[in-house]
Amino acid sequence: MKAAFVLVKCEQGRVAEVAKAIIEIDGVSEVHSVTGDHDLLVKLYAESYDAFGDLIPTQIQRVAGIRETSTMLAFRAFTGGS
Amino acid sequence: MKAAFVLVKCEQGRVAEVAKAIIEIDGVSEVHSVTGDHDLLVKLYAESYDAFGDLIPTQIQRVAGIRETSTMLAFRAFTGGS
Amino acid sequence: MKAAFVLVKCEQGRVAEVAKAIIEIDGVSEVHSVTGDHDLLVKLYAESYDAFGDLIPTQIQRVAGIRETSTMLAFRAFTGGS
Amino acid sequence: MKAAFVLVKCEQGRVAEVAKAIIEIDGVSEVHSVTGDHDLLVKLYAESYDAFGDLIPTQIQRVAGIRETSTMLAFRAFTGGS
Amino acid sequence: MKAAFVLVKCEQGRVAEVAKAIIEIDGVSEVHSVTGDHDLLVKLYAESYDAFGDLIPTQIQRVAGIRETSTMLAFRAFTGGS
Amino acid sequence: MKAAFVLVKCEQGRVAEVAKAIIEIDGVSEVHSVTGDHDLLVKLYAESYDAFGDLIPTQIQRVAGIRETSTMLAFRAFTGGS
Amino acid sequence: MKAAFVLVKCEQGRVAEVAKAIIEIDGVSEVHSVTGDHDLLVKLYAESYDAFGDLIPTQIQRVAGIRETSTMLAFRAFTGGS
Amino acid sequence: MKAAFVLVKCEQGRVAEVAKAIIEIDGVSEVHSVTGDHDLLVKLYAESYDAFGDLIPTQIQRVAGIRETSTMLAFRAFTGGS
Repeated sequence: MKAAFVLVKCEQGRVAEVAKAIIEIDGVSEVHSVTGDHDLLVKLYAESYDAFGDLIPTQIQRVAGIRETSTMLAFRAFTGGS
Repeated sequence: MKAAFVLVKCEQGRVAEVAKAIIEIDGVSEVHSVTGDHDLLVKLYAESYDAFGDLIPTQIQRVAGIRETSTMLAFRAFTGGS
Repeated sequence: MKAAFVLVKCEQGRVAEVAKAIIEIDGVSEVHSVTGDHDLLVKLYAESYDAFGDLIPTQIQRVAGIRETSTMLAFRAFTGGS
Repeated sequence: MKAAFVLVKCEQGRVAEVAKAIIEIDGVSEVHSVTGDHDLLVKLYAESYDAFGDLIPTQIQRVAGIRETSTMLAFRAFTGGS
Repeated sequence: MKAAFVLVKCEQGRVAEVAKAIIEIDGVSEVHSVTGDHDLLVKLYAESYDAFGDLIPTQIQRVAGIRETSTMLAFRAFTGGS
Repeated sequence: MKAAFVLVKCEQGRVAEVAKAIIEIDGVSEVHSVTGDHDLLVKLYAESYDAFGDLIPTQIQRVAGIRETSTMLAFRAFTGGS
Repeated sequence: MKAAFVLVKCEQGRVAEVAKAIIEIDGVSEVHSVTGDHDLLVKLYAESYDAFGDLIPTQIQRVAGIRETSTMLAFRAFTGGS
Repeated sequence: MKAAFVLVKCEQGRVAEVAKAIIEIDGVSEVHSVTGDHDLLVKLYAESYDAFGDLIPTQIQRVAGIRETSTMLAFRAFTGGS
């Protein structure tokens, strides 16, 4: 499985509503509210990087109340002793 | 336990070396190389938010080869059905 | 008490109105209009960092006329001779 | 008196040292370590906005260990009932 | 006289209309359409820095079709042989 | 011919629609959906740099569903052995 | 083949030297000097997205004179009539 | 004549020295120290946009003490009654 992270800015006052909608999407494993320029940090998985090309615009970005997203694909997960 | 995320820019050519040093730090649970403006995304845990005030400058930021960091504290982890 | 700073972008033409609404919120101690990318800099206090996780989305971000916020938690206040 | 805020990025591992040097500068009233893209938020006062044009480059920016600064001048401080 | 620069993002398709409205404002001396993240760069003058605190929010930012502004005050104009 | 690149943020859920409208514009040679802060990267050509001053605001930015653009002009294309 | 774009900031005065080194790397198809926050825009190809995870840090980022990179993977190339 | 603007970040403590070197370069008409993320705003002229492709990297960016530049080309200068 491949991992990606999406930083999300919500329309003001809709953070909890957006978070609850995103966590129900297939492939999404974590949704955190965070300090800084964005409201939410989302971690999601797919079988291939290509799959994120569909999953992010057609599933994540269509959630009502999202204003802006920034996507990072994770290439490699480092582990202790690696 | 409280969670935080740190985005890291490394000196050019030192990404793997920095990642391997960070993953050994107590409290660090994940280190991913990522696309975008930063080289690494780090997830770490501490017993309180106050503890990040020490952990990040004295442990993470002192790793040789780090050029810049951006820190996000996670307030709430949303879960399915929450 | 813990301190946090919130940088605020307002809908065009609503800076003074937003500032006056924010200064009335419990825990807010200072609201300044500032040069740069943001319109307002807000300083606020809470009893714990956890409290900001509620205070900022439910109180600050719901003020009408806010377009975008960026939150910084203050870990440590340095003082002369410290 | 006029107020300004300076966000500071420090060379890695030198945050406390830089903060302690800045707090000793005349006109500086607060130095906080903060989450986000910057390491420190500094509040300072001067008799006129013009004075910041000297104070910031000749006093603040010359502190050893500073890597980058971003300056915001405060135009107006909003107060309750104003 | 003091100088300031304002970078402006317009609502899509309204750049020329916004530029023509801004150039008519007292104190505005130049309006350029520019490449990059912003649509327009505006140069303006006022008798004091304090005056920008009124001029920018009440005159510039209220122009219809502006989406976002970023303000820079100019401290010193360097000249040849200075 | 001169080249330029435009990074585009779309209104949420309209990326494919915007991309298909842009690719039909004269002078546009490539439209890619991309990871990161923007949704699309567009490459376009014109006979002179001056022509981009018209082409980008009157053709690209008027496509329905665009929220924000950032324009880069390409000065020089480096080629192997150059 | 999959495509990616890398925006590059160079050490001051080394743009042409860096560009000439990058264009010789396998998989790199275009290097342009550009206006804006970055000095160069690089287009490169690999057989899979995974391959960029090696190619970018071990080939591109090790070029002498690079100061900072920002990577965008291209998911889909839109074409006329698509 | 065509106009361009260059925002400059200097090495800490070298703003005045850099400004004085830039103002002596042919084509440079204004250099201002400014508030915000950058230290200097430079206005320069050339006979064509192509000329900036040489002027900026070979003249401006080689000034000792510059750390980073961001370039905006000006397409059109709006004037009153235009």
